[in-house]
Amino acid sequence: MTQGNAPRRETWRTTIWGEMTAEFLGTFVMIAFGSGVVAMTVAALNQSGRGELIFAASGDWLLITFGWALAVTFGVYVAGGVSGAHLNPAITLALAVRRGFPWTKVLPYAVAQLVGAYAGAALVLLNYRDAIRSFEAAHGIVRGTVGGAADSGATLSIFATAPASYYGTSYAGPLVDQIIGTMLLVLIIFALTDARNQPPKSNLAPLVVGLLVAAIGMSFGANAGYAINPARDFGPRLLAWTAGWGEAALPGANYYFWIPIVGPIIGSLLGAFLYDLLIRDVLIARHETATADVETKGETVKERPVSAVEEF
Amino acid sequence: MTQGNAPRRETWRTTIWGEMTAEFLGTFVMIAFGSGVVAMTVAALNQSGRGELIFAASGDWLLITFGWALAVTFGVYVAGGVSGAHLNPAITLALAVRRGFPWTKVLPYAVAQLVGAYAGAALVLLNYRDAIRSFEAAHGIVRGTVGGAADSGATLSIFATAPASYYGTSYAGPLVDQIIGTMLLVLIIFALTDARNQPPKSNLAPLVVGLLVAAIGMSFGANAGYAINPARDFGPRLLAWTAGWGEAALPGANYYFWIPIVGPIIGSLLGAFLYDLLIRDVLIARHETATADVETKGETVKERPVSAVEEF
Amino acid sequence: MTQGNAPRRETWRTTIWGEMTAEFLGTFVMIAFGSGVVAMTVAALNQSGRGELIFAASGDWLLITFGWALAVTFGVYVAGGVSGAHLNPAITLALAVRRGFPWTKVLPYAVAQLVGAYAGAALVLLNYRDAIRSFEAAHGIVRGTVGGAADSGATLSIFATAPASYYGTSYAGPLVDQIIGTMLLVLIIFALTDARNQPPKSNLAPLVVGLLVAAIGMSFGANAGYAINPARDFGPRLLAWTAGWGEAALPGANYYFWIPIVGPIIGSLLGAFLYDLLIRDVLIARHETATADVETKGETVKERPVSAVEEF
Amino acid sequence: MTQGNAPRRETWRTTIWGEMTAEFLGTFVMIAFGSGVVAMTVAALNQSGRGELIFAASGDWLLITFGWALAVTFGVYVAGGVSGAHLNPAITLALAVRRGFPWTKVLPYAVAQLVGAYAGAALVLLNYRDAIRSFEAAHGIVRGTVGGAADSGATLSIFATAPASYYGTSYAGPLVDQIIGTMLLVLIIFALTDARNQPPKSNLAPLVVGLLVAAIGMSFGANAGYAINPARDFGPRLLAWTAGWGEAALPGANYYFWIPIVGPIIGSLLGAFLYDLLIRDVLIARHETATADVETKGETVKERPVSAVEEF
Repeated sequence: MTQGNAPRRETWRTTIWGEMTAEFLGTFVMIAFGSGVVAMTVAALNQSGRGELIFAASGDWLLITFGWALAVTFGVYVAGGVSGAHLNPAITLALAVRRGFPWTKVLPYAVAQLVGAYAGAALVLLNYRDAIRSFEAAHGIVRGTVGGAADSGATLSIFATAPASYYGTSYAGPLVDQIIGTMLLVLIIFALTDARNQPPKSNLAPLVVGLLVAAIGMSFGANAGYAINPARDFGPRLLAWTAGWGEAALPGANYYFWIPIVGPIIGSLLGAFLYDLLIRDVLIARHETATADVETKGETVKERPVSAVEEF
Repeated sequence: MTQGNAPRRETWRTTIWGEMTAEFLGTFVMIAFGSGVVAMTVAALNQSGRGELIFAASGDWLLITFGWALAVTFGVYVAGGVSGAHLNPAITLALAVRRGFPWTKVLPYAVAQLVGAYAGAALVLLNYRDAIRSFEAAHGIVRGTVGGAADSGATLSIFATAPASYYGTSYAGPLVDQIIGTMLLVLIIFALTDARNQPPKSNLAPLVVGLLVAAIGMSFGANAGYAINPARDFGPRLLAWTAGWGEAALPGANYYFWIPIVGPIIGSLLGAFLYDLLIRDVLIARHETATADVETKGETVKERPVSAVEEF
Repeated sequence: MTQGNAPRRETWRTTIWGEMTAEFLGTFVMIAFGSGVVAMTVAALNQSGRGELIFAASGDWLLITFGWALAVTFGVYVAGGVSGAHLNPAITLALAVRRGFPWTKVLPYAVAQLVGAYAGAALVLLNYRDAIRSFEAAHGIVRGTVGGAADSGATLSIFATAPASYYGTSYAGPLVDQIIGTMLLVLIIFALTDARNQPPKSNLAPLVVGLLVAAIGMSFGANAGYAINPARDFGPRLLAWTAGWGEAALPGANYYFWIPIVGPIIGSLLGAFLYDLLIRDVLIARHETATADVETKGETVKERPVSAVEEF
Repeated sequence: MTQGNAPRRETWRTTIWGEMTAEFLGTFVMIAFGSGVVAMTVAALNQSGRGELIFAASGDWLLITFGWALAVTFGVYVAGGVSGAHLNPAITLALAVRRGFPWTKVLPYAVAQLVGAYAGAALVLLNYRDAIRSFEAAHGIVRGTVGGAADSGATLSIFATAPASYYGTSYAGPLVDQIIGTMLLVLIIFALTDARNQPPKSNLAPLVVGLLVAAIGMSFGANAGYAINPARDFGPRLLAWTAGWGEAALPGANYYFWIPIVGPIIGSLLGAFLYDLLIRDVLIARHETATADVETKGETVKERPVSAVEEF
């Protein structure tokens, strides 16, 4: 059996570069599917002049949330075995703060994620450049314009998130939104990867993590487009900046670009802290007590309470 | 590796308070996602004046039922390892009546679930306060009003359930609806957690339980909003009462609030009874007979009938 | 721990009556959810005068196909451990013909399935009687009427299937449709339960079987409503006959009722035959050859071809 | 127990013909469901004169992408145990180039896939011939016509893919689209079947592969209908050519037919190369290094980095 270019003891693959390659490709896949589904919904499916853009119909929102869910799932399946598939600098940071992930790897991971996101967005632009041009022509959109009839916010939404109109120029609303969304993301990812809790087995966690992102999109998505990931927003935003959206993309209307960076970082640490305080420490304490009982008193390990959903 | 604030033999975490913490956080997560998806559908996605509220389109209903399904799934994943993730006083009660769950824990569990539901609803209000205000302004809704052009039922539906208009002021219809929905919920949860039956393995039961709640929503949801859980309805209703919906929330138009409390309790006991009578006792009887045959006559355990879906 | 009314060596539970109880409850659950989701889509969600009935919009169809998928999933989870969860006389028959299921049990199973379907439909009527009455009043429908402005086909579709209008009075079209749908159902169920093939494990087959029914509904559903199960159609049809739809339900316009009985039986045997001929016999032959090679020549078992999707 | 026509050491079943039978039946099932769901969306559900064809609404697109996902899932479940369920000549080729799949089997597999696709499309035409005729009559469509009011592109889309209107007569756009879509398909299938990575277990890979095809459809589907499989497009196209669509089907408007053949082949090899270069070779190198460390220095195998999603 030919093994392709199977290497023998090659250097870079066994260093941090191997992990960076995986984070790059995983994030690339995630953004390719994720920006891709927005490009589909906004531009490619919207040729017949229906004229209702994103946010107008629940059907669109189901398509977008399912598309992003599968984007995350397959990004994780691609990178998981090598790097753990963080695909998100906020998660990498939380793992460094709370789970002993090496601090020296945080910046390399974040860079690989950012470059992967940029490249994934470039693939989407390559694939949909005709659809986007046609959509712009049909709706009189001038790329890079903010406000007015030629506003390019609809096509920019393929790449970068933006706050809902009811926020006006306030930063507080979308910042809180990003903190809450990422808090839920990390709190639950910590549950899904805690061997003392009930983590999905049979290597199906990537599917469940994808569904988690769908849940966040369905329930906490419309305020500010659920970036919940600095690389997911800034990488494609950078691509859009270089591809004609200019200042509409970066720094964005009202200098918005920093919100989906700062919000997720705060939310991520908050979610990790809450999970550890309210669940993980309880699981550890109960495990230690049970073990001690067995050791010192010869008792059997205490039964867990009767569960609605038992683990088999 | 730093373990955060890993405790050593701390007291409260190994007592009922540890389980209450888990029930609190699990229900918090469930209601945050659950009320969140209704807030999305009713208010946040509905800014462009489409004017069709909840119940008007199947697309909305798919979004709401999937959102609630994932809400339950992730609530269970968060709390499961500690408390069994009841997240529902009616389920806690059924487990006490039929499965030996300690009676002394029933009230603490119910309180934790109620407080968690209240807190989850508060998070949703915090996150969507601008969307709700903007929606109220666009549609001329006056918070707390019942009936007329300023009726606030649409925004109240983010937090509390209500009967369909075709019920008028009758209690019987929605009460029967809540009994039936919760009966199906508990009957099937008892099947999904019965080791003698075919319970999902690989820690995927939380996903299947989420889909069960989706099934109830899709098939038994429109009559009265499928509360099927006293904490899920009363906790957010209490929050709405304190947040401006006042008597429209509690006691609710026509003193409705007691229906989603009493109905689920009756239905839960009924479902548990039916499952045990028609399935569990059969499984136990067959198991005992098979075992007895082996012991007394040296026969092999009787084969199960050829299955459409065999267990491997 | 109290075990409810756990029986000791009670007689009926270890006889065919125990299996009939399970088939009854499984089919009851399946029809409660299945007829329920059509009642939701047709009547309960359709109060605001949108006036587009079933078949009019893809969103409705997604709701119906997902609802039926979960209906099947949970019916199988309820009954699986006792009776194998056939829930369908056509499947029971195919198992008797091709898998050695005892012929003496075929009729008892079919009766239990039919009674369960009738009872499930009665539960749906009980739950939605106000919604249906309100819908009838809003649209000028007179229950039991066939054709004209008062035609009650929309509400009858909650319980019984009907051919699409483009078939006119032809029997051939819907009969072929039912044969094809049930052929695919049984062909694939035989694959999903064949231990030599790649059957889902971790007790997740009920979920996959539910998705199979969704697939049939999405791809082969609109011609004749994908009954693909004599009990699923005839049981609720009988209920409708007794509940005011009269001859519109039974024998149905143009004596239609026999099509969803005869078509599924033919299709079921065809699907079972095709699977065994083209797949199962190949798997058995290859297994025997491989075993023989090992025995006679000391060779190792032949590798399977490199798979796109390997089994781990 | 009767085993049907269980063969004893029959010849053809243990040769390449047995695998071809499985590839035939798997592709038959896949195309029956896949072309079926388009027939449903375009013709059968579209009788009431809504007049919006495919691509017009996200709801339609959800139905089509879910339908195709399940089509792939069940095609793989049917054939997997015998032939590995390639169901796609581009995948067969990539496995020959990168995974040692025997070159002598490539052509037989491709032929079986093509014949299966043709037969699956024929089943769909048989099932929906009345629906299609009725739809053609209602919309003034003349089968085989290209352009103008009688254009038959809508019904042809049941069988064959076509480029979006914004491509005009350019080949480059759809060719790039097919390369990208198939690249993602094969890159991720290689991840999902790599035992060193995180492949789904419990025989649930067919489900995940179906979701992968849904992801490609949701994110890369509207440009050119995501054929990403030469057999999936050419087989049904051939059937349409023989069934009245004539030159509109083959060679297709602007001789389009070669794009969904050549694009997938290029994309498949590209995806396989990328996965092996960026992930598989890293996994192999790390595994070898870890093993060598243990052997030569008595060290324990290096820990993988802390994962967001750990494997249990």
